[in-house]
Amino acid sequence: MADSTTPVPKTCKVILAETIAKNLLAEVKESLDSMQSKGTQQPQLAAFLANDDPAAVKYAEWSKKTCEENGFKFDLRVVNKDLLEDEIMSANHDPAVDGIIVYYPIFPNNPTHDKYIQETVALSKDVEGLCHTHLQNMYYNVRFLDPRPPQKSLLPCTPLAIVKILEYLQIYNSILPYGNRLFGKTITVINRSEVNGRPLAALLANDGATVYSVDITGVQIFTRGQGIKQPRHQVLDKEGWRVEDCLPLSDVVIGGVPSDGYKVNTDLLRDGAVCINFSSFRNFDGPAVKEKASIYVPSVGKVTIAVLLRNLLRLIDNRQPNEAPKSES
Amino acid sequence: MADSTTPVPKTCKVILAETIAKNLLAEVKESLDSMQSKGTQQPQLAAFLANDDPAAVKYAEWSKKTCEENGFKFDLRVVNKDLLEDEIMSANHDPAVDGIIVYYPIFPNNPTHDKYIQETVALSKDVEGLCHTHLQNMYYNVRFLDPRPPQKSLLPCTPLAIVKILEYLQIYNSILPYGNRLFGKTITVINRSEVNGRPLAALLANDGATVYSVDITGVQIFTRGQGIKQPRHQVLDKEGWRVEDCLPLSDVVIGGVPSDGYKVNTDLLRDGAVCINFSSFRNFDGPAVKEKASIYVPSVGKVTIAVLLRNLLRLIDNRQPNEAPKSES
Repeated sequence: MADSTTPVPKTCKVILAETIAKNLLAEVKESLDSMQSKGTQQPQLAAFLANDDPAAVKYAEWSKKTCEENGFKFDLRVVNKDLLEDEIMSANHDPAVDGIIVYYPIFPNNPTHDKYIQETVALSKDVEGLCHTHLQNMYYNVRFLDPRPPQKSLLPCTPLAIVKILEYLQIYNSILPYGNRLFGKTITVINRSEVNGRPLAALLANDGATVYSVDITGVQIFTRGQGIKQPRHQVLDKEGWRVEDCLPLSDVVIGGVPSDGYKVNTDLLRDGAVCINFSSFRNFDGPAVKEKASIYVPSVGKVTIAVLLRNLLRLIDNRQPNEAPKSES
Repeated sequence: MADSTTPVPKTCKVILAETIAKNLLAEVKESLDSMQSKGTQQPQLAAFLANDDPAAVKYAEWSKKTCEENGFKFDLRVVNKDLLEDEIMSANHDPAVDGIIVYYPIFPNNPTHDKYIQETVALSKDVEGLCHTHLQNMYYNVRFLDPRPPQKSLLPCTPLAIVKILEYLQIYNSILPYGNRLFGKTITVINRSEVNGRPLAALLANDGATVYSVDITGVQIFTRGQGIKQPRHQVLDKEGWRVEDCLPLSDVVIGGVPSDGYKVNTDLLRDGAVCINFSSFRNFDGPAVKEKASIYVPSVGKVTIAVLLRNLLRLIDNRQPNEAPKSES
């Protein structure tokens, strides 16, 4: 062991969301330039803020800044939660609006009501990928909007941001065929919410990973079966398992626990694990995780916003060359 | 389970040595062109065959073909084993010879005699990286010929070929700093010979991996310590461990057992493991390994020859721009 006066050599690489977002934003800019050279109007995102959650307000501010820096119009609409449904429906029918984002939770004591609001957004403007059709396609590992290929289905922003991060970190192995690039990887996702952790576990398993999905109710395993022979993931309860059982097995550990008090037990991490935090709180103790991890990504928000713009361009692209946007909700 | 009439979908990618060798040979060709444009003569490899091992004869034939296809001169010298030492010393002093390769084993019942022959080859012509100085630098994770940087030390061909294969397969993660790119990976090497398995285990551990080195006498673990804080690997015996204990823990399994009867127990492989065979026999049962592995590399010989030519250019480069070759053995 080094004594207390010897600085420990750095062996953990800290990668900031900004670095990864920059690459994605460059791709977005290129696509936008190409679309605008063919006559596409400046894309407009309508953002509905109907709560006073400080994380939502901060995310809205970042989104506005990123939109405006990258040639997108960002229209923040602060509305009363009782008028939200009407306002969304009006945006669904407004041809000037290309995509709609809503900051959740709106009804924290009634999650099904939030779900109802998600479904109010027109599929063709659902930039967050939270409408039932988008989510179901993701769970079923279907990449196009049936029966209308080649219109692509959208993936929810935070899970897709984490996929993009794992691609950047070369955890996705591009030597393997598309769709199987996580085969051989074991990943723990601590959070199984309907908007983040559960879709993320499904996405990673659909790409070939063995995923331990952890929340306070227990552990589930998401896989495509031995040898990833199944076309999409299946879920099994791991009776009696706890996060402590998953950490030592995992190449990648992804924390998304929305609590200041929660910390991943870094003693249990595999030496050289890759650690990613998507909670607005720090799920990993910084100095401790850097003693164990090979790569640590302390936050993902900026990648999420880059992915949001990427999704918005996909919505616009899905409308070309056929017709004007329709409301399908 | 699929029934016997349903073909099982392919999920294992088989990568042939030829594919990887092609990339390396293109780099070699580019370096050679650049060196020849500055006046370097056509490189000549002197190859000494003093046994009648069919694997050695085959390797010599392949080497000749690859040399000639890529602009190198290959001079096969079939010699009596009692005259070998004199012949090598004469080649050490011949300015027309740039590199020397000897096909082992020469004295199968006296391995120290083979070791003596390896040391007879001049360091400046040791294209196989088997001279003591080259080997010691490798074990000590020293990349230059001290005290003469920037002359680079050479690595033994088969271990280096496997490093190049692992780079191609993206097991080396280029996001991480050079020298730490295997941090987080667990690798089993089945073979601990002095020319192949032991140097390979050391090389991989020096690059950050946790390596289980297996032979019939037992299992050793090669690592740079927790958090890869040590500058080079250390070796510990894993008392009571067998290959069966290592396989389920390993991201990569490398077989080098020179026996037709030996097969890795594929039932114990981690789902999605990467499997590489460097034995001249098949250490993995083809159909069985393809049911479990994400990537399977059935042989490495063509990569080894490409690496041999790469080493030869490095020897020539090490002589530039200072002086003519010296014999240091």
